[in-house]
Amino acid sequence: MESTIILDKLNSPKDLKKMSFNEMKDLAGEIRELIIKKVNTIGGHMGPNLGIVEATIALHYVFNSPVDKIVYDVSHQCYPHKILTGRKEGFTNPDNYLKYTGYTAPEESEHDLFKVGHTSTAASLACGVAKARDLKGEKGNVIALVGDGSLSGGEALEGLDNAAALDSNIIIVINDNDMSIAENHGGVYDNLKLLRNTNGKAECNFFKSLGFEYYYVAEGNNVEKLVETFEIVKDTNKPTIVHIKTQKGCGLSVAEQNKEAFHWILPGTLDENKQPVELVENYTSLTREYILNKTKEDKTVIAVNAGTPGVFGFDSEFRNTLGKQYTDVGIAEEHAVAYSSALAKCGAKPIFTVMSSFVQRTYDQLSQDLCLNNSPLTMLVYWGGISGADATHLCTFDIPLISNIPNMVYLAPTNKEEYLAMLNWSVEQTQYPVAIRVPNIALVSTGIEDNTDYSVLNKFKIEESGEEIAIIAAGNFFALGKDLKDYLKEKFGYNATLINPRFLTGIDEDLLENLKQNHKIVITLEDGELDGGFGEKITRFYGNSNMKVLNYGSIKEFTDRIPLDELYQRYRLTPELISEDIQANFK
Amino acid sequence: MESTIILDKLNSPKDLKKMSFNEMKDLAGEIRELIIKKVNTIGGHMGPNLGIVEATIALHYVFNSPVDKIVYDVSHQCYPHKILTGRKEGFTNPDNYLKYTGYTAPEESEHDLFKVGHTSTAASLACGVAKARDLKGEKGNVIALVGDGSLSGGEALEGLDNAAALDSNIIIVINDNDMSIAENHGGVYDNLKLLRNTNGKAECNFFKSLGFEYYYVAEGNNVEKLVETFEIVKDTNKPTIVHIKTQKGCGLSVAEQNKEAFHWILPGTLDENKQPVELVENYTSLTREYILNKTKEDKTVIAVNAGTPGVFGFDSEFRNTLGKQYTDVGIAEEHAVAYSSALAKCGAKPIFTVMSSFVQRTYDQLSQDLCLNNSPLTMLVYWGGISGADATHLCTFDIPLISNIPNMVYLAPTNKEEYLAMLNWSVEQTQYPVAIRVPNIALVSTGIEDNTDYSVLNKFKIEESGEEIAIIAAGNFFALGKDLKDYLKEKFGYNATLINPRFLTGIDEDLLENLKQNHKIVITLEDGELDGGFGEKITRFYGNSNMKVLNYGSIKEFTDRIPLDELYQRYRLTPELISEDIQANFK
Repeated sequence: MESTIILDKLNSPKDLKKMSFNEMKDLAGEIRELIIKKVNTIGGHMGPNLGIVEATIALHYVFNSPVDKIVYDVSHQCYPHKILTGRKEGFTNPDNYLKYTGYTAPEESEHDLFKVGHTSTAASLACGVAKARDLKGEKGNVIALVGDGSLSGGEALEGLDNAAALDSNIIIVINDNDMSIAENHGGVYDNLKLLRNTNGKAECNFFKSLGFEYYYVAEGNNVEKLVETFEIVKDTNKPTIVHIKTQKGCGLSVAEQNKEAFHWILPGTLDENKQPVELVENYTSLTREYILNKTKEDKTVIAVNAGTPGVFGFDSEFRNTLGKQYTDVGIAEEHAVAYSSALAKCGAKPIFTVMSSFVQRTYDQLSQDLCLNNSPLTMLVYWGGISGADATHLCTFDIPLISNIPNMVYLAPTNKEEYLAMLNWSVEQTQYPVAIRVPNIALVSTGIEDNTDYSVLNKFKIEESGEEIAIIAAGNFFALGKDLKDYLKEKFGYNATLINPRFLTGIDEDLLENLKQNHKIVITLEDGELDGGFGEKITRFYGNSNMKVLNYGSIKEFTDRIPLDELYQRYRLTPELISEDIQANFK
Repeated sequence: MESTIILDKLNSPKDLKKMSFNEMKDLAGEIRELIIKKVNTIGGHMGPNLGIVEATIALHYVFNSPVDKIVYDVSHQCYPHKILTGRKEGFTNPDNYLKYTGYTAPEESEHDLFKVGHTSTAASLACGVAKARDLKGEKGNVIALVGDGSLSGGEALEGLDNAAALDSNIIIVINDNDMSIAENHGGVYDNLKLLRNTNGKAECNFFKSLGFEYYYVAEGNNVEKLVETFEIVKDTNKPTIVHIKTQKGCGLSVAEQNKEAFHWILPGTLDENKQPVELVENYTSLTREYILNKTKEDKTVIAVNAGTPGVFGFDSEFRNTLGKQYTDVGIAEEHAVAYSSALAKCGAKPIFTVMSSFVQRTYDQLSQDLCLNNSPLTMLVYWGGISGADATHLCTFDIPLISNIPNMVYLAPTNKEEYLAMLNWSVEQTQYPVAIRVPNIALVSTGIEDNTDYSVLNKFKIEESGEEIAIIAAGNFFALGKDLKDYLKEKFGYNATLINPRFLTGIDEDLLENLKQNHKIVITLEDGELDGGFGEKITRFYGNSNMKVLNYGSIKEFTDRIPLDELYQRYRLTPELISEDIQANFK
C-alpha cells in the first residue's frame, strides 16, 4: 500500500499553499508512487508524468487555479495535476483507475480548460485565453505548459511567434526533458541543449530572439527552485518563458534509463514475473522487415516518420541500420509530408509512416505539396479504424480526409500478400501519391502471392461471385464482409457476392454497372466515418438506378473510450444487425 | 514600347553569366518595366516581383540552375525568374501574357521544381530536394527563396527547424521586405527588424539560435552586393541563411509607398483615366459593416484573420477602429483557429475570416482545438466555390473538409437577410463551432428579415412546393436551383419543389422522408467538390429507398485556370444539361 500521509490532507490546490517545502517534497514522492502503480496496472504515460510532478506542485503552489489558468500541451503529462485538483481517488483507489481520462478534460474539473491530446497546441490556446481575459477586463495569469517534443510542431511555433507579440501576461513553461517521444530533432532542440549547457546564459537564445523574457531553472525536479522562479514571473505583464530542465521518468530508475520505452507503457511492464511478449508476425513487423530489406538493396529508399518511431517498430537497431536512409523529423507532420514529397519528386523513394489520428495535421501539405505536384510518395497510415480510443486520438477520419484529395491513391489491403504487393508497387512506381491503410487487425495470409497491377486504378476484386446481394467490404472490414456473406447463406440461403474494393479513392464503374444485372442490394462496409467516406461514393454511383445501397461505418461523432463492442452495436456492424437491415429492405 | 536591349541577348540563365554588373543593372530595369506593364494589363502580383528582380538575377548569375535547384516559396514572386529562364515572351509580347501561370510550374520549365501557391513551403521542400541529392550521391546547391510573410506559417517553422539540422548544403534566402501581404506580426518579424537595424549583427538572432550560418545583405536590390554574398555561400556544406533586405514594389513609387495595396493589383490600377470602382453592397462590405457595429456594442467581439486582411476589406480604418478587438496573426492559420477557439471557450466572441483555399491549412486545429472542445467560434469562409482560379488556389474543397468534422455546423446562406441572421445567431450562441460559407456571388436581398432559429440544426427550408422532382440547392447554387425549376416548368411543365438546405453538415431526415410521398427524383446542387460533400449525404439517406438522386457539383480534380463556363459544361451545371439528365432518368 502506498503512503499518502501528505496527500490525505490535500483536497484542492488551496491546501497546497499551506505546506512547507519538505512536505511538498514528500508529497511529490507520494504522487510518484501512485502514478507508478496506476500506470503499471492499466498502462499509460509513465515518463512524462514522473518528470513533471514537482513542476505541477510548484505551479499550483504559486498560482491560483482556476482563476489563474493552466493550459496543458498534449496533456498526457496531466496526472499529477489531476491528483492535485480534486481527482486523487482516480489514483489512490484501483477501482477508480478508469474514472478519469489520461488527458485534461473540462467535463471533469474546472481546473482543466481544454480537451487536448494532439500536441503543440498550448501556446496558441493560451494566447486566446489571455486575450479573452484582456477583452473582458479580467485579471489573472495564463500559463501554458509545453513539453515532450511539442515545440517542433508548426502550431507550437506559430503560437510562440504570436505569444511573443502579445502585449500582456502570458507565461510559457517549457518542460525540457531532452526528449520528444523519441530523441529530439531539429535546430530548436539544439538550442535548448545549448541553453541547458550554459545554465540558460547563452547569448544565442531562441526564445529571446522571438522577444520573450526568459528564465531558466536547472533543477526542474526541485519544488523550491521552481517556486522561486514562478514567484518572480507571476503577474508579469510581458510574454515570458520559463525553461525548466526536468528528468523524464524521474524517480523510477528503469524509466530514467529507458526514456523512450517508458514514455508510454503497457500494463504490467514493471512486473517481475512478466511474460516476455511473444513475437508474432504482424503488419508492423512486416513493414519493418520490408523497409530493412528494401533500403539495403536500393540506396534511394528512405523511411520518414514524425516523432513516433516506436509505433512503427523503428527501434534503435532499425535506425542505426538505416543510417542516412532514415529521417525522424520530430513532431512535425507538415514538414514530413512536404519533405517526403520533394524527396519523391527528385527521384528518391520515401516511405512516410504516420498514425491515422496525426495525418490530420497535414491536410494542406497532402493537397498542395504532395498531390498537386503528383509526387510518388508512399504514405503508410497506421491504426485507421473504429476503436475504443480517447476522443483525442480517434482514427476514424482518415478516409474522408485523404480520399477526397485529387490525384491521391488510397489503398486498403486485406491480407499480407496484398499489402506487400501494394507496398512494393507504391515504392517503385512514379505516377501517383499513394497512401496505404495498414490493416490494424491480426495478420491474415492467403499464402498466394498477389500479382495485381495496381497501376490500373480503381479495379475492385470479386472474391466470391453470387447474386441478389453484393457486399463491398473494404480493408479491415473485409473479414466482416466474409462473415456477413456466410451468415446470410447459413440463415437465409442467400448467395451473396463478396467484393474487395482495394481502392478507397475511386470506384470501379464497370463492375458496379455489371452488378445491376443480378443484384438488388449493395452493402458497403468501411472501418471509419461514413460521412465523406468510401461507401457514399458507391451510393452516389447508384443514385440514378434501382439498386438499393446500405452504407456501414461509424457515424460522425467524437467517441471517448467507448468499448469497441458497444460501438459495433451502435453502428450495426455485425452480421446479425446488417442482415436485419437487409431483410427489412427486401420486404 | 519597353526597351529590352539587354534582355534580347538573354535566352537562358547561362547568358547572364557573361554580363557585367552594369548590364545586369540595366537588365533589372528592363525586367521591371515589363512586369509593371504586364501586371497592370492583366492584373497580378506587383510589389513582390518588383522587389525580387535583383535577387533573382544574382541567384541565376551565381548558381547554375537547373543543376543547382531553386525552390520558391508561395512562388508569386517568380516573374523575374520566368523571364530569365526562357519564358520572356510571356512578358514582352502582350499576346502571350496568359501563356505562363503566375506561379512556378514544372510543366513550363526545368527551372521550376514545384507547383506552389500556398505559402511557407520552401524550407521543407528544399530539405527534401537536398536529401534526395545526397541519397543519390549527386552534387549541387539547393536554394530556398522565402519571402512575403511566409516565415510565420507552421510549415515554414517546422521546415527551418529541420533544415538547420540537415548536415549538408542548403541555402535559405530570406527575402525581407518588412511585409507579409499586410504588415508583419509576431516575434520572428520583430527579430528580422532588429537584424535589419543592426546590419545583421545583433547577438539575438533567430536563425543562429536554430543553428544556421547567417549572412546579411543590407542592399537586397543591388545585384553586385547580392552576388558577393551568394558567391561566399555557394557550395557551403552547412545549412545557411542569407537574409536580404529588399524593397517591396521597388522601382514603382506608388507601389513602394502603398505596399499592401500593390501586393496584388487589378488590371488598369496604374491607368490615369481609371474609373473609380463603384461601391456596391456585397457580402464583404456587409460583413465589414456588421463587425464594425458589433464590436462597438460588444467589447468581447473580436475579428481575427491570418495575414490577408485586404481580402475581407479590413483596411487600416477598420483596423484602427477595432483596435484591441482586431487580431491579424500573420500567415498562421493553425494558430488563428486554436487562438479563436480559446477566445470562444473563454467567453469572447471571435469572428475568424479565412479564404476557402487556406482553411485547408488548419484541419487538425478545426478538429482538435475547436470541434472536440465544441468552442462557439464563428468562422467565415470566403470565396468557396468552383472558379477559373489557378490550381494552387482552388476553393472547391472546403465542404468535404469542414463538414465531415463532428460538432461543426456549416451554414450556406443564399441571400443577404439569411446571411445576416446566421452571422448574428452564430456570434451570439454558445453551443457550436459554426462556419458560414460567405456567398461568392452578387448579393441578393429578399427584403424580408430572416427570423429562423438556427439553433434547431439541419432544418431545410422548402422555398417552393411542388412534386415529382425536388431540387436541393445549397448556397451559391440556390440561384441555379431556381433557374432549373423555372426551366423544368417552362420546357416540360414540371412543377418541381425547390429546397434551400441552409445546413451543409447534416440532413433534414423528416423533410427528406416526406419527399418520398410525391417525388421520384431529388437533385442536389452544391458549389464545390462532390466527393465527400453535401449531396452524397442526401444520396446515402435515400440508399434504401426508390428515390432517385442525382448529385451536381465539381468532380475530384485540380483544375488550372479553366474558364468557369467550361467547368460548368464539364460538370453539367446548367438547367439545360441537368434537365437532360432528369429526362433520361424518367424514361
